[in-house]
Amino acid sequence: MTEQAFVPFERLVVAGVGLMGGSLALAARQRGLAKRVVAYSRRLETANAALQMGLVDEVSSDFSQALENADALFLAAPVAQFSALLGAVDAGSYPNLLVFDAGSTKANIVEIARQLAQSRPGVSSPWFANFVPCHPIAGAEKHGPQAAVATLYEGRTLVVCPHADNDAFSVARVRQFWQAMGMRVMDMEAHEHDRLFAAVSHLPHWLAYAYVHSLLQAPTGTQDMQEGGAGFRDFSRIAGSSPEMWVDIFQDNQAQLLAHLDVFQASLNQLRDALVRSDRQKLLDELTRVSGSRKSWVGH
Amino acid sequence: MTEQAFVPFERLVVAGVGLMGGSLALAARQRGLAKRVVAYSRRLETANAALQMGLVDEVSSDFSQALENADALFLAAPVAQFSALLGAVDAGSYPNLLVFDAGSTKANIVEIARQLAQSRPGVSSPWFANFVPCHPIAGAEKHGPQAAVATLYEGRTLVVCPHADNDAFSVARVRQFWQAMGMRVMDMEAHEHDRLFAAVSHLPHWLAYAYVHSLLQAPTGTQDMQEGGAGFRDFSRIAGSSPEMWVDIFQDNQAQLLAHLDVFQASLNQLRDALVRSDRQKLLDELTRVSGSRKSWVGH
Repeated sequence: MTEQAFVPFERLVVAGVGLMGGSLALAARQRGLAKRVVAYSRRLETANAALQMGLVDEVSSDFSQALENADALFLAAPVAQFSALLGAVDAGSYPNLLVFDAGSTKANIVEIARQLAQSRPGVSSPWFANFVPCHPIAGAEKHGPQAAVATLYEGRTLVVCPHADNDAFSVARVRQFWQAMGMRVMDMEAHEHDRLFAAVSHLPHWLAYAYVHSLLQAPTGTQDMQEGGAGFRDFSRIAGSSPEMWVDIFQDNQAQLLAHLDVFQASLNQLRDALVRSDRQKLLDELTRVSGSRKSWVGH
Repeated sequence: MTEQAFVPFERLVVAGVGLMGGSLALAARQRGLAKRVVAYSRRLETANAALQMGLVDEVSSDFSQALENADALFLAAPVAQFSALLGAVDAGSYPNLLVFDAGSTKANIVEIARQLAQSRPGVSSPWFANFVPCHPIAGAEKHGPQAAVATLYEGRTLVVCPHADNDAFSVARVRQFWQAMGMRVMDMEAHEHDRLFAAVSHLPHWLAYAYVHSLLQAPTGTQDMQEGGAGFRDFSRIAGSSPEMWVDIFQDNQAQLLAHLDVFQASLNQLRDALVRSDRQKLLDELTRVSGSRKSWVGH
């Protein structure tokens, strides 16, 4: 992948300046990737906090006004707000506005955008060609502008999911932007993205939540947990993640999550059956395959 | 808990000198808790490796001979070997031998020992009064004498599960030994121990194995895993644990594990039901309770 020089954005609007948006704003300023960074938030106090912390150059409480003369819009708000935000883009006229996002699911977001873009027959919606779905694989358990750090994206993976109607130049420009942020950029089809992340991210979160949920059924649950060691600590860590964010992800990627959950259930049944039958050899064979595979994991 | 001065063992036999036994042997020598430490292993090469690495003072290939003049025996072999090892103790005559162990389950081990001790009517089995069931909450993914470190137990928790026929002095002496190893000592009834560790240790291991098992059902499973981030890494880490050791633990604590698995299944069903009904509020309520509880976890 050749890294081309990135021509800075003139005016980058960041909608949602929590951990993801705030970190992107700060990094873009520090790396000189945008001449001016504007914060928009439904809650003005959040945008003002971002301004005070030096994450952005400017704050706007009027989304349409913020987009005037902007050449880039980064959506880092909760996915539940995407309809309203993209609706405002659709209602205005910003033919040269590049739009990209940080949503953890992709097929549903492309679908929301496509339906908005096609909702007024006869009216062309050039913005849709410039909407480039993205998923930066970065994050933390903390949230809010206070949690923003310029290094959040550095060295991490960015998945870009171009859609059929995308303008090739817009996709290339978004790719260059993320590379200039220090990220490894991967291309993936939106449904394949959702399948993959259901497997390696959404399902583990779901299971960690369900596991801690089951402990809380015992009157001594919270107390029992305190006796957990390093295995417990690591296995259950993601059960402390933001419920608001994860309920949205689970709903947004429901079909893929349920499909993976069915496969998990089949594995659970198969292993339980071997345990009940005290079939030591069967358990040993299956778990040896599992542990060998996990031990060969390298990750990025 | 007052920490009394520990009078060193004269001759401590360590049966099984892998990670647990080897680390205990080394720490006991370094801390002056045993004048002489003897390694016994079914595989002489393991015992010799421990000797070469300076973990022990002496090696014996004859278990009964090793026990002559010994005043303490630490069982760190796989639990499957406990019957044979305790059988040899029972067959010999070591009235002053203190026996303690590192098994991850306790009720079944107490039962094995009790049955051996009661197997010859009319013959008194004084060793059973001196058998003090223990579970040091320490470990690592590595194994073998090569993995042994003197600091393995330091600062960790030791659960001692005295049985009804225990000699109080023997229990006190074992407690003092572990405290002198730098451990926090907790008392727990054996069945309560097994219930608690089924919840906070055995079930998470079981679920981590089942989760990775389910990923391997997809032809792309191993490849998919590589895209996992920090959440995947931590959640699935324990699926890389030793299958031999864990299959034994799952079998040894089958009833408790199955009971907890049933509770987990109920939680999983309840949450899945809310997801399928798109009952956002229900999911949010449940996961908020879960995440709050997990975030308040402190651990030791």
